[in-house]
Amino acid sequence: MTRPHTPTLDLIDLPSDLNGLSDAQLRTVADELRAETISTVSETGGHLGAGLGVVELTVALHAVFDAPKDKIIWDVSHQCYPHKILTGRRDRIRTLRQKDGLSGFTKRSESPYDCFGAAHSSTSISAALGFAVARDLGGEGGDAIAVIGDGSMSAGMAYEALNNAGHLKKRLIVILNDNEMSIAPPVGAMSSYLSRLYAGDPFQEFKAAAKGAVSFLPEPFQEGAKRAKDMLKHMTVGGTLFEELGFSYLGPIDGHDMEQLLSVLRTVKTRATGPILIHAITKKGKGYAEDRADRGHATGKFDVITGEQKKAVSNAPSYTSVFAEALVNAAAQDDKIVAVTAAMPDGTGLTKFMERFASRCFDVGIAEQHAVTFCAGLAAGGMKPFCTLYSTFLQRGYDQVVHDVAIQRLPVRFAIDRAGLVGADGATHAGSFDVAFLSNLPGFVVMAAADEAELVRMVATAVAHDDGPIAFRFPRGEGVGVDIPADAQPLEIGKGRMIREGSQVAILSFGTRLQEVEKACEALAAKGITPTVADARFAKPLDRDMILQLAADHDALITVEEGAVGGFGSHVAQLLAEAGVFDHGLKYRSMVLPDIFIDQSSPADMYDTAAMNAEHIEAKVLDVLGVGVIGKLA
Amino acid sequence: MTRPHTPTLDLIDLPSDLNGLSDAQLRTVADELRAETISTVSETGGHLGAGLGVVELTVALHAVFDAPKDKIIWDVSHQCYPHKILTGRRDRIRTLRQKDGLSGFTKRSESPYDCFGAAHSSTSISAALGFAVARDLGGEGGDAIAVIGDGSMSAGMAYEALNNAGHLKKRLIVILNDNEMSIAPPVGAMSSYLSRLYAGDPFQEFKAAAKGAVSFLPEPFQEGAKRAKDMLKHMTVGGTLFEELGFSYLGPIDGHDMEQLLSVLRTVKTRATGPILIHAITKKGKGYAEDRADRGHATGKFDVITGEQKKAVSNAPSYTSVFAEALVNAAAQDDKIVAVTAAMPDGTGLTKFMERFASRCFDVGIAEQHAVTFCAGLAAGGMKPFCTLYSTFLQRGYDQVVHDVAIQRLPVRFAIDRAGLVGADGATHAGSFDVAFLSNLPGFVVMAAADEAELVRMVATAVAHDDGPIAFRFPRGEGVGVDIPADAQPLEIGKGRMIREGSQVAILSFGTRLQEVEKACEALAAKGITPTVADARFAKPLDRDMILQLAADHDALITVEEGAVGGFGSHVAQLLAEAGVFDHGLKYRSMVLPDIFIDQSSPADMYDTAAMNAEHIEAKVLDVLGVGVIGKLA
Repeated sequence: MTRPHTPTLDLIDLPSDLNGLSDAQLRTVADELRAETISTVSETGGHLGAGLGVVELTVALHAVFDAPKDKIIWDVSHQCYPHKILTGRRDRIRTLRQKDGLSGFTKRSESPYDCFGAAHSSTSISAALGFAVARDLGGEGGDAIAVIGDGSMSAGMAYEALNNAGHLKKRLIVILNDNEMSIAPPVGAMSSYLSRLYAGDPFQEFKAAAKGAVSFLPEPFQEGAKRAKDMLKHMTVGGTLFEELGFSYLGPIDGHDMEQLLSVLRTVKTRATGPILIHAITKKGKGYAEDRADRGHATGKFDVITGEQKKAVSNAPSYTSVFAEALVNAAAQDDKIVAVTAAMPDGTGLTKFMERFASRCFDVGIAEQHAVTFCAGLAAGGMKPFCTLYSTFLQRGYDQVVHDVAIQRLPVRFAIDRAGLVGADGATHAGSFDVAFLSNLPGFVVMAAADEAELVRMVATAVAHDDGPIAFRFPRGEGVGVDIPADAQPLEIGKGRMIREGSQVAILSFGTRLQEVEKACEALAAKGITPTVADARFAKPLDRDMILQLAADHDALITVEEGAVGGFGSHVAQLLAEAGVFDHGLKYRSMVLPDIFIDQSSPADMYDTAAMNAEHIEAKVLDVLGVGVIGKLA
Repeated sequence: MTRPHTPTLDLIDLPSDLNGLSDAQLRTVADELRAETISTVSETGGHLGAGLGVVELTVALHAVFDAPKDKIIWDVSHQCYPHKILTGRRDRIRTLRQKDGLSGFTKRSESPYDCFGAAHSSTSISAALGFAVARDLGGEGGDAIAVIGDGSMSAGMAYEALNNAGHLKKRLIVILNDNEMSIAPPVGAMSSYLSRLYAGDPFQEFKAAAKGAVSFLPEPFQEGAKRAKDMLKHMTVGGTLFEELGFSYLGPIDGHDMEQLLSVLRTVKTRATGPILIHAITKKGKGYAEDRADRGHATGKFDVITGEQKKAVSNAPSYTSVFAEALVNAAAQDDKIVAVTAAMPDGTGLTKFMERFASRCFDVGIAEQHAVTFCAGLAAGGMKPFCTLYSTFLQRGYDQVVHDVAIQRLPVRFAIDRAGLVGADGATHAGSFDVAFLSNLPGFVVMAAADEAELVRMVATAVAHDDGPIAFRFPRGEGVGVDIPADAQPLEIGKGRMIREGSQVAILSFGTRLQEVEKACEALAAKGITPTVADARFAKPLDRDMILQLAADHDALITVEEGAVGGFGSHVAQLLAEAGVFDHGLKYRSMVLPDIFIDQSSPADMYDTAAMNAEHIEAKVLDVLGVGVIGKLA
C-alpha cells in the first residue's frame, strides 16, 4: 500500500513540535496532514469529509493554542482524525474504529488532548463553558475552544449554551465550522440565516463584519474588515444573531486559508475578553471528497486513486431499508402516514420516503426534542406520524416522549433504528437503554423485531395501532435473509409467538438475539437438550399467558434481549414475582447487556464481550440446568 | 366568602358566547375574568401571576379565533386558569389542583379546548407546528397558535421549533408573552436581547417594528408602526432574531391593551401567510400580585383583601431546605463545590447557595440539556458540580447524562428533588422514572434518602465521591423531623443499613417509603409478625451481601420504592436471579409505582392510589406470608 510522502508532518509528534515552524511550514503540515488523513481512512473507513474540512483549522488551533492546557473541544468529533494525528497518535491512527484501536471520536481516556469526548452533536459549547467557568474559579486550564459545525447549530442545546455563555460573559471561543452541510443537506432557518451571512461570496480576501470584532483584528486586516462590514450593513441581515446573544462575531473567514486562520486565532488569543464566535467557512471533504454528494461523510475502506469503495457483499437487505420500504408501501395506502427524521434521512432510510412523498416527510435537523413533540402535535392533528430515530438519539427526546406523547396517550409511532450494539461507532452510539426507558411508561406499546419479516409486521402493527404510542426497535446491519411478507398483517398487541417446543428450559427472546438462541439450540440438541423457544415480540404489554405457561411448564426460564437491565427481562421478573412464580422455585435468568460501556469492534465481537452470543446462551442453559459448563466458558 | 360581581362574565359559558360583544364589553369581560381568577386562586392556591398576566390575551384570543377548531396552545400552561373559566369549566374552577378536580394545567382529556396538554415548558411551538402541518395535509383544525413566555424561550426545544417553523413556512402564530420573568428573574442572553427590543418604553401607543409586518396592520396603526420601525433602526438590535429565523415579527405590543390585542389578532387572522411572532409585553401578576417579588408565581390559598397566605403549620423542615443548607455548609468547606439550577433557584433551594456563593452558583435558565453538559465540563475542569434539578425535569437532560457524564465517568453530582409523587402538580411533575433511567448506566451511583438525616449524609457522600457520577433523590415536602447530624460523614458506597431485625419476611426499602414500612411493621407487630427492615440507601451499586443475606434468612423479601418498574426492585431481582436465589424458591415481591399516570391529589392520597402506603405494605406482607388479607384491602 502506497503511503503519502510527509517529510514535514513526520517531524510532528505532539502539538508543541509545531512551535517555531513558519506559517509556510504550517501550510505544508496541513497539506501533508490532509494526505495522511485520506490515506488513513482509505485503510480504515470512517468519517472522511469532516476531517478534511478542518485540516487547516486543526493545524492552526494547535499552532496558536497550547493544548492540553487549552481545551479544544470538537463537536460530534467526526472531524477529529487530523487532531489525533497531531497529538501523539499517528502511530495508531490506522487502528481507527477497530477493536482495541483508536476510537473514531475524541475520548478522554485515550489522550489528555481529548479533553472532552463527543459523538452526539451540539455538546461542545456547554462543555467549553464548563471549562471556562472552572478556569475562572481557579481550576486548571487555559482557553476553552469549541469547534462546532453548522448542522450542530440546529440543536437546542447549542442555543441553550450560547444563551448562557452570552449571559455569563466569560472568555470563551466558539468556532463555527460552517460547511453548509452536516450529514444531510442542511435544513432549518438557522442554515438559511448562515447562508445569508456570507451570501455566496468566494472569500478571496479576509472579511470581518462585526461591529465589536473589527478592533480585534491585526492592522492589515482592519481595512478589509471595515469594507466587509459596510457591505453587510446593506444586506437584509443587519446585526448578527450571535451578537444578539452576547457574542462578539468575527467572520466569515475562509477556513482553508492558513494565513487568515493564524492571524485571526492569534489576535483572538491576545485580545479576546468575553465570548467570541469565529465563523469559518469550510468545504466538507476538502481536497478529496468535496465533489461527492455526501462529501465523504462516512465511508468504507476505499482506493485512494480511483475512489472506489471496498464494500463487503451483503446477503440480505439491511433492516433500515426493509423498514423504509415497508413504510413507503404503507404510506401509499394511507395518506395520514407522515415521517419525521432528525438530520438522518439516509441513516434512517427515509430518503426513499422523501422521494416518494415529499410533502409528508420532515427532516427537522438535529433536533430530537422538537422531533418528538412535533410528532405529538401531528398525532393530535389526526395524522399517523412515524418518529424515526436511532435508539441512542431518542435519548435526546426522552422528556418529550414522557410528557407530550405518553401522558397524553398520543399515537406517535417510534421507529427505533440502531437498537443494541452498533459496531465501529462504539459505546456512544449503542442503543442500550430504549427498552428500559420506554417500557415503564404507562400506555406504551414496545416491540422488538426478531428478523426483517417481523419488522415488516411491526410496521403494519404501528400503522394500525391508533390509540396510544407504540415503538418498535431493530438493529443496525443486515437482516437474516428470511422472506418478507408481501401483505403483512398487524400483530395482535401483547402476543408473542412460539418458535419451538421443547422441555426443561424455555428461552424467551426479545429482538434479534433469536438467531443466536437458535444457534445455541442446535448446539444443545447435540447434547440432548431441547429448549423451548419463544419470541416475545412485546416488552409491553407482556404476553402474560404465554410467559406464565412457559414458567409453569419448565424448570428454567431464560430471557434474552439486546438491552440493559431494567427492560424486557425486568418486566418479566416483575410479572413472575407478582404472580408468585418464584415462591416455589423457578430457575429464572435474564441475559442483558452487561454493566459496562463496550468499546468499538464488530457488532458480533461486541456481543461476545457482552456475553450474549450463541455460545454464551448455550453456556447459560447448561449452567442453569446444572449440566456443567465446558471449555473456555467454564 | 365574598365572590366578585361579574355580570358580563356570567353570560359567557363558551368562547362562542363572546361573539357579538363589543370591544368595550370584551374589556369588561377581561376585568371580571381577572377578578374571578384572583378569587378562585385565593380559594384553591396555585399559579396566580401567570394567569393574571394573560387575562386580556385570553379574552382576545377567544374572541378573535375559533377554538376548538383553532388550536390555542398554552406553553407550560400555568397561565390557563382564565382560559378554563372561558371554556365551559367555570363551574368547576374552584376544584383546581384538587383530587378529582380540574388540573392546574391544560389537559386533553379534560376539554376539547385543551388541544395540547403542557406542564413542562417550551413544547408549544413544536406542538403548534404539528397541528399546522396536519391541517395543511388535510387534517382537521384551523389556526395553530402557541402562547409562550419569555422564560420558556431559553429552552433549546423552543429554538429547535422556531428553526424548523421558519424553514417550513407554514402559517403559524406564536405569541411571545414577555413578562421579563418566568419563575425566577430572567437569565440568559435571550432575555437581555428581548429587553433591548423594547428598551423600557412605556407602550403608550402601538408600535410594530418589523419590515414585513407593517403591511399587516390596519390603516390607523401603520403610521405609528413606521415611526417605531424608524426608531428601532437606530437601536443596536437591527433586524430581529426572530426575523432571522424566518418569522414575521410584530411588536412589541402592550399585552394588556385590549384594543391593540384585538386589532393585531384580527389582522393576523386575516392576512398572515407564513410563521408570525407577535411580541406582547405583559406584567406577571397584573392587577393583584404585580408588586410581589415572585409576582404570584405559585401561591397557597390567600385572603383577597390582605393578601395574607393561609399556610399550613410545618412540623419539620422541607427536604429541599435541608438539602440546600447541607450544600451551603459543604461549600463553605470546599471551594470546588459549584451548583447549577435550571430556572429553579427557589424550588431547588439554591437561592440560599446563590446568596452565599454568588460566583459559584449558576442559573442557566430553562435549559436542562445544557445544565447537565455544563456540569460535565465543570467536572472535567476540576470542580465538584451539583446539578440540582427536579426528577421530572432531569428527563430533559437524559442523553447528556448518558453521553457526557456516564460514558466519560465524570463526577457530576445530581441532586434530584421532587422524587416520587408530588401532589397538586399531578402526573406531569411526578418523579417516577429517574431510578430506572439512571441505575442502568455503567459507573453511576444512585441513592435515595430515607429521611432528612440521610439526605445530609448523602450530600456528604456526593461531595466525597469524586471518581464518577453520583445521584441522590429526595421527595417534595417536609422531612420526618429526625435530628440532622451536625457533622455528617460520607456513606460507604453500596452499603445499606439494617433498621430492625425480625423474621420470616424482610422489607427492603429504598427512599422515604421507609416511614410507611415502619408504620406497617407496627400494625404487623400487633398480629405477631415482626419483619426485618433494611434501608437499601443505594440502588446502584446494590448492597449485594446484605440483600443475599436477607434472602437467605427469610421466606419472603419485599422491596419498596417510590418509582416505576425497572428501577431498584428490578436490579434486586436481577441480582437474585443471577445468584440462583429463585431456583429453590423465595417469596419475592417488588412494590413499585403502578402502570398508570396518577392525577393530582395530596401526595398521601396519590400513594394511596398507587397502593404504596403503610396499609398496602402491611397487606402485601400478609398476602405473601399467606396469612390472609383482611378488611377493605381484601
